[in-house]
Amino acid sequence: MSRYWSELARGLSPYVPGEQPQIPGLVKLNTNESPFGPSPQAIEAVRSAAADTLRLYPDPQSTRLRETLADYHGVAPEQVFVGNGSDEVLAHAFAALLKQPRPLLFPDVTYSFYPVYCRLLGVDHETVPLDGEMRIRIDDYLGRGGAIVIANPNAPTGVALSRAQIERLVSERADAPVVIDEAYVDFGAQTAIPLIRDHPNLLVVQTLSKSRALAGLRVGYAIGDEALIEALTRVKDSFNSYPLGRPAQAGAVAAIQDEAYFQQTRSAIITNRERLTTALARLGFEVLPSSANFVFARHPRHTGQALSAALRERAVLVRHFSGPRVSDFIRITVGSEAELDRLTGALTAFLASPSPK
Amino acid sequence: MSRYWSELARGLSPYVPGEQPQIPGLVKLNTNESPFGPSPQAIEAVRSAAADTLRLYPDPQSTRLRETLADYHGVAPEQVFVGNGSDEVLAHAFAALLKQPRPLLFPDVTYSFYPVYCRLLGVDHETVPLDGEMRIRIDDYLGRGGAIVIANPNAPTGVALSRAQIERLVSERADAPVVIDEAYVDFGAQTAIPLIRDHPNLLVVQTLSKSRALAGLRVGYAIGDEALIEALTRVKDSFNSYPLGRPAQAGAVAAIQDEAYFQQTRSAIITNRERLTTALARLGFEVLPSSANFVFARHPRHTGQALSAALRERAVLVRHFSGPRVSDFIRITVGSEAELDRLTGALTAFLASPSPK
Repeated sequence: MSRYWSELARGLSPYVPGEQPQIPGLVKLNTNESPFGPSPQAIEAVRSAAADTLRLYPDPQSTRLRETLADYHGVAPEQVFVGNGSDEVLAHAFAALLKQPRPLLFPDVTYSFYPVYCRLLGVDHETVPLDGEMRIRIDDYLGRGGAIVIANPNAPTGVALSRAQIERLVSERADAPVVIDEAYVDFGAQTAIPLIRDHPNLLVVQTLSKSRALAGLRVGYAIGDEALIEALTRVKDSFNSYPLGRPAQAGAVAAIQDEAYFQQTRSAIITNRERLTTALARLGFEVLPSSANFVFARHPRHTGQALSAALRERAVLVRHFSGPRVSDFIRITVGSEAELDRLTGALTAFLASPSPK
Repeated sequence: MSRYWSELARGLSPYVPGEQPQIPGLVKLNTNESPFGPSPQAIEAVRSAAADTLRLYPDPQSTRLRETLADYHGVAPEQVFVGNGSDEVLAHAFAALLKQPRPLLFPDVTYSFYPVYCRLLGVDHETVPLDGEMRIRIDDYLGRGGAIVIANPNAPTGVALSRAQIERLVSERADAPVVIDEAYVDFGAQTAIPLIRDHPNLLVVQTLSKSRALAGLRVGYAIGDEALIEALTRVKDSFNSYPLGRPAQAGAVAAIQDEAYFQQTRSAIITNRERLTTALARLGFEVLPSSANFVFARHPRHTGQALSAALRERAVLVRHFSGPRVSDFIRITVGSEAELDRLTGALTAFLASPSPK
């Protein structure tokens, strides 16, 4: 710290992202990236954007990308907001919508960036405990609090709510903005996007980092009632007029348009997830039912930290978290078949060695 | 507006960037882009980043880019912060450093994003009038106020302060953080970066959008004492862990390394600026002495709005601003020789036509 820091800077507790080590040969199952590359058409579009036109500012409204997303989801372009990754989109949603006089509600076990945004943006919040099976209970969010943000599927559990449950939430809490963070929705959960027509309080956030395999390009978006999108746009235009560069806009358009590749790769990940779940169960793990591209699993004899350290020694990176209910678990990204074989091989070797909890 | 907007969203007055129309054949001299493309090496680096590795998150610390910038400027990597365009870097500097108990000071005529950040981030501010020749007077910033932000060269005037003047400011105001926004410094002003060694209150912000011709890639950076950089990093890690995608990091590294291309293109722009200044003077314009890649000029017989509209009719886009002292002026980006010929041709035709002020 120095005396030149603002009070705000002094009070922050920044988010810590998963490691991005540059170790060749490492099996990297810690940040929920896709084992498959992005659509070849997206790669080609980024390549085409590498041109003299980079001297020009990008379209500040990302018009073509917003039109493409609108077509894809069956909404109007005015109902689409895009940003520099869904983290930026979420940050703007916290400022524009979720910062309300009454405290924001979100689960006690969820994406750990939410309390970080609250600190940065001065948003008062209360956490709502998951039930005994690590599920979100809609009843706990009714008749109380201000706005709501829920990840669906939830992170790091992978457990999903149905669209009917989300509909109940946005109907019963029509008094407040509700943000559904669908970063992982394409791996088996139901999107809430069709509900925006009847629910002007619902904002749905998605990303191209997971199911579109474009984590390295930084594109996220939100879909909701035009008035909600306008609020996000006002915050964006008070922060950075041009959040998406030309390569990002071009690559994102092409990725959304390549439906065949999207379906093929997300199906392969779902298949791999089921195999991984079965293999982990055989090794004695309890695996929460996942609708995401990761599983959250615990072993009766080892802590999450011990499992994570043992895997790291064997050049396999997974993520674990500290905290009362999650420290027993490890979160494993659904990688390729070869990566998952490396993981289960490493776990088998570790579990066969004598090292009690 | 809707009832779901936060109080914050209701109170915003967003920045309005220059137009980015998609009209072929238009001479676009309104957003200070380079008439030359970026370094061919930068284009090649962006192209190489268009690969399967886009499935992976970028380095959240942009280590290689920060090291490259540190080498280039003769500082340590811990003294370098990078962001998604210098607008994002500035926004984080407002939150981390410039938000102080006493009001922030900046010129009454300057980059019009500064008051927008103030509104978004709850920063109280006071503007300090330019002198009669549209210059910043350092004396006006001494013995008063909290932090300071000054664009050098200033926008939209193009007028620069010397490094000695900046040194006097940061020495006499060692009580407060001082941000020098050097978006246009490479076109003839002196950078304040060498002063950071002795002045822990100085943060210098630069961009790759202008002199590196990469407005479409979105990369900006700040250089200052390690403690100032740490404050920016805390804000960034409370907002978006990965502000720069892989193509942006790769392209920026290559652009900074191509010194020959940088020197050649910025010299050409300086030459063109001098030609433009002479041509405008011949047409009866008063042109402020510019150290930037634009000139700020006024004509005794026509308002900025009239000149701007007349040029637009002739498919030449320049920028004009409203406000007490600037509305007489137009801001003209220094384009290619051919573009500047189109501009002076259009102005000559307009001035020959009968349309008094």
